[in-house]
Amino acid sequence: MFLAIVSCKDKVNTSRANEVVSGQGHPKLILTKQGVLDIKKALGTVPIFDASLSATKAEVDAEIEEGIDVPVPKDLSGGYTHERHKRNFLMLQKAGVLFQILDNDKYAIYVRDMLMAYAKLYPTLPVHPQTRSYARGKLFWQCLNDSNWLVYTAQAYDCVYEWLSEKDRNILENDLFIPFAKFISEGNPQFFNRVHNHSTWGNVAVGMLALVIDNDELLENALIGLKVDNLKAGMKDNDGGLIQVEGQKLGFYGNLDEPFSPDGYYNEGPYYQRYAMYPFLIFAQALQNVKPELKVLEYKDGVLLKAVNALINLTDANGNFFPLNDGQKGMSYYTDALVSAVDIAYYYGGKNPELLSIAKKQNKVVLDDTGLSVAMGVKAGLELPFQKKSINLSDGKNGDEGGVGVLRSHGLELVYKYASQGSSHGHYDKLSFSLYENGNEVIQDYGLSRFVNIEQKGGGNYLKENKTWAKQTIAHNTLSVNGQNHFKGKFEIGSKHHSELYFYNDEQPNVQIISATEDNAYPGTKMLRTFALVKDGDFEKPFVIDLLKVKSLTKNQYDLPYYYLGHIMKTNFEYNSFSQLKPLGKNNGYQHLWNEALGKPTEDYTVFSWKNNNLFYTLTTTSSKADQLILARIGANDPEYNLRKDPSFILRRKDVKNTTFASVIESHGSYSPVSELALNAYSHLSSLKIILDNEDYTAIELITKSNKSKVFILSNKDNSKDKNHNIKIGDKNYNWIGAYYYR
Amino acid sequence: MFLAIVSCKDKVNTSRANEVVSGQGHPKLILTKQGVLDIKKALGTVPIFDASLSATKAEVDAEIEEGIDVPVPKDLSGGYTHERHKRNFLMLQKAGVLFQILDNDKYAIYVRDMLMAYAKLYPTLPVHPQTRSYARGKLFWQCLNDSNWLVYTAQAYDCVYEWLSEKDRNILENDLFIPFAKFISEGNPQFFNRVHNHSTWGNVAVGMLALVIDNDELLENALIGLKVDNLKAGMKDNDGGLIQVEGQKLGFYGNLDEPFSPDGYYNEGPYYQRYAMYPFLIFAQALQNVKPELKVLEYKDGVLLKAVNALINLTDANGNFFPLNDGQKGMSYYTDALVSAVDIAYYYGGKNPELLSIAKKQNKVVLDDTGLSVAMGVKAGLELPFQKKSINLSDGKNGDEGGVGVLRSHGLELVYKYASQGSSHGHYDKLSFSLYENGNEVIQDYGLSRFVNIEQKGGGNYLKENKTWAKQTIAHNTLSVNGQNHFKGKFEIGSKHHSELYFYNDEQPNVQIISATEDNAYPGTKMLRTFALVKDGDFEKPFVIDLLKVKSLTKNQYDLPYYYLGHIMKTNFEYNSFSQLKPLGKNNGYQHLWNEALGKPTEDYTVFSWKNNNLFYTLTTTSSKADQLILARIGANDPEYNLRKDPSFILRRKDVKNTTFASVIESHGSYSPVSELALNAYSHLSSLKIILDNEDYTAIELITKSNKSKVFILSNKDNSKDKNHNIKIGDKNYNWIGAYYYR
Repeated sequence: MFLAIVSCKDKVNTSRANEVVSGQGHPKLILTKQGVLDIKKALGTVPIFDASLSATKAEVDAEIEEGIDVPVPKDLSGGYTHERHKRNFLMLQKAGVLFQILDNDKYAIYVRDMLMAYAKLYPTLPVHPQTRSYARGKLFWQCLNDSNWLVYTAQAYDCVYEWLSEKDRNILENDLFIPFAKFISEGNPQFFNRVHNHSTWGNVAVGMLALVIDNDELLENALIGLKVDNLKAGMKDNDGGLIQVEGQKLGFYGNLDEPFSPDGYYNEGPYYQRYAMYPFLIFAQALQNVKPELKVLEYKDGVLLKAVNALINLTDANGNFFPLNDGQKGMSYYTDALVSAVDIAYYYGGKNPELLSIAKKQNKVVLDDTGLSVAMGVKAGLELPFQKKSINLSDGKNGDEGGVGVLRSHGLELVYKYASQGSSHGHYDKLSFSLYENGNEVIQDYGLSRFVNIEQKGGGNYLKENKTWAKQTIAHNTLSVNGQNHFKGKFEIGSKHHSELYFYNDEQPNVQIISATEDNAYPGTKMLRTFALVKDGDFEKPFVIDLLKVKSLTKNQYDLPYYYLGHIMKTNFEYNSFSQLKPLGKNNGYQHLWNEALGKPTEDYTVFSWKNNNLFYTLTTTSSKADQLILARIGANDPEYNLRKDPSFILRRKDVKNTTFASVIESHGSYSPVSELALNAYSHLSSLKIILDNEDYTAIELITKSNKSKVFILSNKDNSKDKNHNIKIGDKNYNWIGAYYYR
Repeated sequence: MFLAIVSCKDKVNTSRANEVVSGQGHPKLILTKQGVLDIKKALGTVPIFDASLSATKAEVDAEIEEGIDVPVPKDLSGGYTHERHKRNFLMLQKAGVLFQILDNDKYAIYVRDMLMAYAKLYPTLPVHPQTRSYARGKLFWQCLNDSNWLVYTAQAYDCVYEWLSEKDRNILENDLFIPFAKFISEGNPQFFNRVHNHSTWGNVAVGMLALVIDNDELLENALIGLKVDNLKAGMKDNDGGLIQVEGQKLGFYGNLDEPFSPDGYYNEGPYYQRYAMYPFLIFAQALQNVKPELKVLEYKDGVLLKAVNALINLTDANGNFFPLNDGQKGMSYYTDALVSAVDIAYYYGGKNPELLSIAKKQNKVVLDDTGLSVAMGVKAGLELPFQKKSINLSDGKNGDEGGVGVLRSHGLELVYKYASQGSSHGHYDKLSFSLYENGNEVIQDYGLSRFVNIEQKGGGNYLKENKTWAKQTIAHNTLSVNGQNHFKGKFEIGSKHHSELYFYNDEQPNVQIISATEDNAYPGTKMLRTFALVKDGDFEKPFVIDLLKVKSLTKNQYDLPYYYLGHIMKTNFEYNSFSQLKPLGKNNGYQHLWNEALGKPTEDYTVFSWKNNNLFYTLTTTSSKADQLILARIGANDPEYNLRKDPSFILRRKDVKNTTFASVIESHGSYSPVSELALNAYSHLSSLKIILDNEDYTAIELITKSNKSKVFILSNKDNSKDKNHNIKIGDKNYNWIGAYYYR
């Protein structure tokens, strides 16, 4: 229903008078008075900006045509009232911007009328009827979404502030905005006074409003948290996450301090970082505009701008984020949050021309000063390709809680996770990895078990299989000991520990290497896992060395899965396929794996090859006759078909204390279903052997089919770059400097 | 090893003298003297031609650099000697063309030297050591590949014919070409004297050589087959196909007559048609050049050119052939055989500008008159988009043995197979269908079980699962009765029958419809299956009506599977997932299906929805409480991991004689993992009912969620377009003209 247009001339007059009072005037938050002038001047001359503007205009015009609907809240995400309120706040923000840029009152009227409808509804609302959340909102089932609403509508309000009558402003502030901000802060300290991406939204929502209405009390709450919250120690949210940790800094600064490492890695992983970045950056931009003296973008050595760089580096060749921890696959730097992040990072971060190439792919900019400067940069042809190189990002507030490394070479990307728990969205997968080629998954990380915003699948929320499967250790490409989870699958224990970097070295483009240890996942058992991405002229493409050395006080069963994607081509071992399928175990995620087939090594190295996306892959791994080779598939005990039925190849080694898994993963050749030619369909290796394995060194030898010997040696105890090593293996001497040898 | 360059001046002289003798001179087969002059004149001015030439030159130059290798035959396809000989004949043909166009002797020398090496090797060869084939070749494991070799090398020989000395020609003809041609014809009548795509290659190979060397006896054998073959009736090949049928026409004309319907559909399906087209067309082109009086392109009302059109129409939106019968997915009109087909069809078929748009996508032309004319057409910007519309293609020599229909609307493509057996590559799947959207499979046809030319998988040949799974009725989206195959899975029986078109009507773009009957697949049981693709303003996209009426003399178990691809979203019925998996049956393909879950309808219509490629789909089907709903997955009893582990939804109805399966398949909405918005994620239907079902009529009513009623009525006995029907259902009268009603 389209509300009647109300005459508002004298209101405009009133608002003009206000300009003088505020000193700075409005808009000031994201758009600025000067910025609007610049934009108006440039209109029609900067293609990406013009296109973004006209797309926004078309979208908002269509919405205005449809009329305003502010329904009584009822649904979970995916349901009508949820999606309607979400769409409303997005439209309000856009309409506000259009009003400023296009000087057309219809947008201001739309904003005012909708906000007034909210001001009428809001005071009547009880807490949301859906009870799933630990912090129920009023418009939405959780305060998180209410906070989203305020982050956007505060911008809309800023844009029409001066146009509104004082009377209307009073109504909006007293009946809607201030009670709204108080509800998500004082009314929900368990949500607001916390270090968590949800809380960031809450802090920023309150902070944005505070800047618009110049309210110091709200701003202080936003920046450093509520002084009094009366929260009990040990409280948890509905995802099992801890609410507060003793002595934490809170508020925006607290949320900025803790989850971001000095390298800009966000502890929950890139999927949530992408989500969290928007409020961080939009509030930083607002603070930069309204309170430049706070120098928020310089805070913690410029961590917010570093975070944008980290985030882009945590994408595959297609721009999709690596789905570490809870991450939904397919989320990418094409999301609006990253459009905004790239624009802000460009504008405030020294105009890095590589960012322009991302912006060009996004083909969209934010309608403000930052977007204008990006659009002008693209127009001027200033962009350079964004070079994603190998990178190692520390985790932890001080950068000393492990990290995430990405080794890159010729289209191959190996992602290694040796980070901290990752807050409530963390998975129990220390030292796990995934492998990509040309943006396609080769050895996958499962990601989360959730169909975000698809109502049919559990209301679009986390599915129970996220806990029973996706977070479990066996669901990842890392070691499971005795069928147990890392840290017994307990968040409290996991949160106390992190893996440790042993060393990272990308100085030699032909041997890039990352190595880390984990001593706490299984008390009494220590792991050292090392990945090298090696470019060697005797191989068609770079290959991966995966060396996992395990030391334990007790005899254990070790399971090391590889979640390959694709179709099995050939193995060098015999296996029996079962005529009936049973789950591989009873709990800890094993109950979700069908045990399809069981094999035994027939050689002292095991070869497993598959085809994916018309490329061939081979995993070669050292093995003993006592090993079991399990072909498994996800999907057992999945009564609602919530899981993907993807395959796994699991190496199982029983009744040993210390052991080393040494593997090589090759990508080779290709197949064309059009020419029907299979090129280079076989591994280059004719054997793989561990030739030395003691406390100090582990050495493997690869023999190629053209009978060349390649030796890789890892110094297990001394990670120094300068150390000179000299050892004898068999009758051959090896002499080198640094933590590893390859030749 | 690169052979030394031999001086050949006087040989050239000798050959020039020959020109006069032959009257026509060489080249004459595919390239012609005039064509070469035209090409030389145009060089450098027609981009696609120039690019194709330079790609060919680069490829052949690299091969010449590598040197010639003519190894003693040993391997199956995928193995070295197989792939080497294959590459050799491809290179010979290309080198011949380059010699003609570029006038550079190095190409002639390369052709001569390699051919001489073959002339030296060939007389020493026994039959190929691999014993898999019913017709073993000498260079390759089957005569088929030997024939491929000769089709290409005859062209090469034609190109260097005049350049060669008479002595060399004599050696080549007496030691290589003529014995070669005789071996694949007289030496293998079970291969040569047959109607089969293999035999076409055999016939054409002999015919091409005959035209080059002007040998009437060979030409006659090629055109009409061997007069004497001494083959026993009932002989079969190694794929189980019958060698000969009493009274068949043989040779090239026989192969042209029988497998092609008057509409140009080839009875084995498009995958083999694509393979078969090349010899048909290349030989037609050669006959057109050398024996234009035979008017081969006008044969059977121009069936060869119609066949090219049929073939292009049997591709999805990406140009991939529908994998009817034995078809490997991914084969497309980008294959070289189709480059040649499109060029020939353009040149000889009235220069249809729509073909130019396919040629432009192929971005490649054949290096002869036909390719030149295509390249010049593209350069002149003459192309029009190739409009793939709905099409119905008759099967059978006379077009009266059923057929294949494709209904198309707004990105949706429904492929309906009601054809004849399809020769030895046929599957037992009468009245089966598949569904595509935007070139992606939605409800798949499994295709073949083979990894063509991937040696690791059974030598690249047909796997045993092709028989035990891919050909079986239950592997298809059609009705299985009592767990049995159509025609008991017997080729002899299947070959005697075909389905019958009931009617096809694409005149109304909003209701396109195809209907066919099958009375012989299960004696005593008759099926009438009708598909309508309906575009209705009350639905977001076109939807499919699938009406399968079954009449039987006996009570049966009916299984109707839908091989959906994607992830299950929601059902309206309860089902129990099994905690252990067993195969669904013991034989007839059922042994390859895991029985994952079993459900029962809770309503009188069953709703099953899934997501694929970020689009939502819903199958709604009428059901009774006694029905079983089976969730199955391919992959049981698959000890070598030869099968894809794809899912199926199977409707099972037991202990009934007559029944009707009435279903609606909708595509609706979309999901974006970037915006995380799910749009229109639910079916538009609130119910589906059969409101009338008798001998004469079947009527269904769809009620939409906006409470609109849609009625579809099929006249079961009268397919006339003009018939006036007037019936009463409930208290409502329906009056219409023609075989169906929809409103």
